Amino acid sequence: MSLTIPATSTEEVTTLIGRAASAAKIWAATKPSERRQALNAVAAGLDEAADSLISIAMEETNLSQVRLQGELKRTTFQLRLFGETLDEGSYLDARIDPADPEWPMGVARPDIRRQLEPLGPVVVFSASNFPFAFSVAGGDTASALAAGCPVILKAHSGHPRLSQATGQVVEEALRSAGAPEGLFAVIFGTESGKTALNDPRVKAGSFTGSIPGGRALFDIANSRPEPIPFYGELGSVNPVFVTRAAAAARAAEIAEGFTGSFTLSAGQFCTKPGVLFVPQDSELPELLRNATLPAAAPLLNSRIQSGFAEVLQDLTGHPDVQVLTSAGDSLADPPAPTLLLTSADQLLSDPEGLFRECFGPAAMVVTYANESQLLDVATLIDGQLTGTIHGEPNDLIAPELIRIMATKAGRLLWNQWPTGVSVTYAQQHGGPYPATTASTYTSVGTAAITRFLRPVAYQNFPQNLLPEALQDSAAGRIPQRINGNAS
Amino acid sequence: MSLTIPATSTEEVTTLIGRAASAAKIWAATKPSERRQALNAVAAGLDEAADSLISIAMEETNLSQVRLQGELKRTTFQLRLFGETLDEGSYLDARIDPADPEWPMGVARPDIRRQLEPLGPVVVFSASNFPFAFSVAGGDTASALAAGCPVILKAHSGHPRLSQATGQVVEEALRSAGAPEGLFAVIFGTESGKTALNDPRVKAGSFTGSIPGGRALFDIANSRPEPIPFYGELGSVNPVFVTRAAAAARAAEIAEGFTGSFTLSAGQFCTKPGVLFVPQDSELPELLRNATLPAAAPLLNSRIQSGFAEVLQDLTGHPDVQVLTSAGDSLADPPAPTLLLTSADQLLSDPEGLFRECFGPAAMVVTYANESQLLDVATLIDGQLTGTIHGEPNDLIAPELIRIMATKAGRLLWNQWPTGVSVTYAQQHGGPYPATTASTYTSVGTAAITRFLRPVAYQNFPQNLLPEALQDSAAGRIPQRINGNAS
Repeated sequence: MSLTIPATSTEEVTTLIGRAASAAKIWAATKPSERRQALNAVAAGLDEAADSLISIAMEETNLSQVRLQGELKRTTFQLRLFGETLDEGSYLDARIDPADPEWPMGVARPDIRRQLEPLGPVVVFSASNFPFAFSVAGGDTASALAAGCPVILKAHSGHPRLSQATGQVVEEALRSAGAPEGLFAVIFGTESGKTALNDPRVKAGSFTGSIPGGRALFDIANSRPEPIPFYGELGSVNPVFVTRAAAAARAAEIAEGFTGSFTLSAGQFCTKPGVLFVPQDSELPELLRNATLPAAAPLLNSRIQSGFAEVLQDLTGHPDVQVLTSAGDSLADPPAPTLLLTSADQLLSDPEGLFRECFGPAAMVVTYANESQLLDVATLIDGQLTGTIHGEPNDLIAPELIRIMATKAGRLLWNQWPTGVSVTYAQQHGGPYPATTASTYTSVGTAAITRFLRPVAYQNFPQNLLPEALQDSAAGRIPQRINGNAS
Repeated sequence: MSLTIPATSTEEVTTLIGRAASAAKIWAATKPSERRQALNAVAAGLDEAADSLISIAMEETNLSQVRLQGELKRTTFQLRLFGETLDEGSYLDARIDPADPEWPMGVARPDIRRQLEPLGPVVVFSASNFPFAFSVAGGDTASALAAGCPVILKAHSGHPRLSQATGQVVEEALRSAGAPEGLFAVIFGTESGKTALNDPRVKAGSFTGSIPGGRALFDIANSRPEPIPFYGELGSVNPVFVTRAAAAARAAEIAEGFTGSFTLSAGQFCTKPGVLFVPQDSELPELLRNATLPAAAPLLNSRIQSGFAEVLQDLTGHPDVQVLTSAGDSLADPPAPTLLLTSADQLLSDPEGLFRECFGPAAMVVTYANESQLLDVATLIDGQLTGTIHGEPNDLIAPELIRIMATKAGRLLWNQWPTGVSVTYAQQHGGPYPATTASTYTSVGTAAITRFLRPVAYQNFPQNLLPEALQDSAAGRIPQRINGNAS
């Protein structure tokens, strides 16, 4: 069924990057409102092509029509939200320090004005599990184009035809909106992605995928003669801590919420809650043993499925792990949702063996005897995209558990579930390594645009030669921090 | 004269980092006003110890008393300015998205709140050429402590006794201000710095120095099992472009300004203008040939001096280079300020040989026949801290020259000189590699605090468990972006 799309040749990649480098000059000089129009045109193009794109996606990914419709809506919303971000203007972080002969540093301050400007061409490696929202026209593409950067999009091998079709929609929409030729291109094949990342004209990379794959690309980006930022979103276990008080107050609700979250989209979210800590003497272990798990559903592709089977076999073969419950054969095709069981003592004695990401419909329930073990676990684990606490507002353990988890995760949740990452102004989708390779940035939400921008200061420039946002006449129209104060 | 200070042992480094990791928990939880008090105490301690510190600095660095007094003033100003930044609060980038059931993404938006939080212990490698402002109590230390991060300070081998004495002032001041034990420590020796950078409890590194040294540390930071951000400020040629119109209008003023800037502090600034492009048929070559250069002055230390001599010998030995003028023997001890001469044609045919940083009192004058050669040069060169244009507001070449240079440098100057980097809200001291290893950040100015912070989002939290800046009650007191809008 899946028509193979040939890998892009090295020559072709080089040509496409040359075009992107030329487009960069034009695109960087466009007005934010022009880039907004182009993003809106892409969103409109996707809306128009929705039926045909979704049907290709269903063939290539095993994801349901409803799920894909929701994801496409998220994708077009995201494109339009970055357009709003451009209009609003504070993403430029425009700062104006007028000359000050009395500047208390002891030397007169010259007139200095600073804004964020685009990095240049970006290579985006798209994800397997979000064929729209983290793929060809996804968040990385939207934020890079919004920032003023051309995009070379490395298609994921899990949905090549969809990538090609979406790429055509994007290219056509950009052309119709008057964007420069070469602003966007899709490339295919593992080698083509590496070639692009190594090209000196490429100024940043972004990636969503596995730890080994992301680390390999991160290493390439950093070992170039000119290293470039590489924004990789790699992996996460997403622990959930249920306090004694919460377990006592809402055990059934928590069991139901957890079951729904870890099995959503067959557990193929980077924010899937992979480990749930519950009091051993609460109702939760028994409730979860008796939970009604959804039926087995095919995973995204055979590679994902074999990866899932491998980790699950490791875990079930671990002497300290039992199968708590399963909706059928966990290793069948498709695999049945499965809950495993261990204890906090056991996990603390072998965290590498037991605290692991298992991408797919499985999770580990960990019983604890003493709430303070939650602090021990939080202290021990490495970087996470999310950390979730189910607690009561007066839980004595909450402040310290939150404090530790804030050093470990990009987003903390209280009495909600980590799946379903809303695209908003305050969203943070990131976290310390290995959750990402760049914990100071986010890959979801409007702040994601900052990944593709760098500050440039202009000292003592005449008004007519300043970028628009730094001119005095932009006051009131574009947010400016004058002399350190927000306007 | 220079008492040798023994290298810090691996065991001691490990102990100090352990203390820093403990201090991190306490320091991250302090109020910004408490950190401001501590920074002010450090500034006051330095003011009090000024005479003795400056006299050690004069012995170790050959810098003049006036220069060192100015630098110390800059240093204490900087500490106090980061205190103001803490008070003002917008450095937290606090964002609040209230829950919105009608969020147009198609799924209800939960309550999400996000702020920047400290990374953890930072290792700071100090510079040779600014024994105060980019050293023990310099900008990196100030911004890291302000951010809430402990500092392990690797002293520069060029001024060990000053580093020790300044370190004692800092530690004493922090202690008197009630800061936790272990918040700040000075370590000595090349190996100790590498040990610290490799320690898993260290979460970021910063550096000011040479390209080879900085790149080696950058590679260590990125090849750790858990890579960490490494903010290296490495090297820069800082080209200056004089247009035909400017040369015609202000040749004498430009010659004088350039001479003053490239010889300031014996040319030992990372922003020294190293290459000056002038019209070949203007008065400038002749004016510069007859310029009165300052007398020879000793460089910071013998290593700097031998490095200067090596590059200068390479340049003067180049077949396309002549000595335009010199205040004496360029290779003597101390070396005399020297101007070299080449042409744009020659530079364009061998940019690696002729467009080079030469740290010390030398610069290259490059004559051009055609103004468009300035664009060719700007296109060819790599990342810079600064790029300067001396022009007239209606110069036809200015917009394109500015456009290109904005992609190459962190700070552009118009009709001023790049030395003397003011510490302000809008300052940008950075630039694409090899000017820095992290072009999206600055190492001077209040925005430098961002290097040591990462975003954390809190979803659906009760008010009492939120960080202060994200609570509703902080409105009006701490800047908050509500629903994407600046308050």
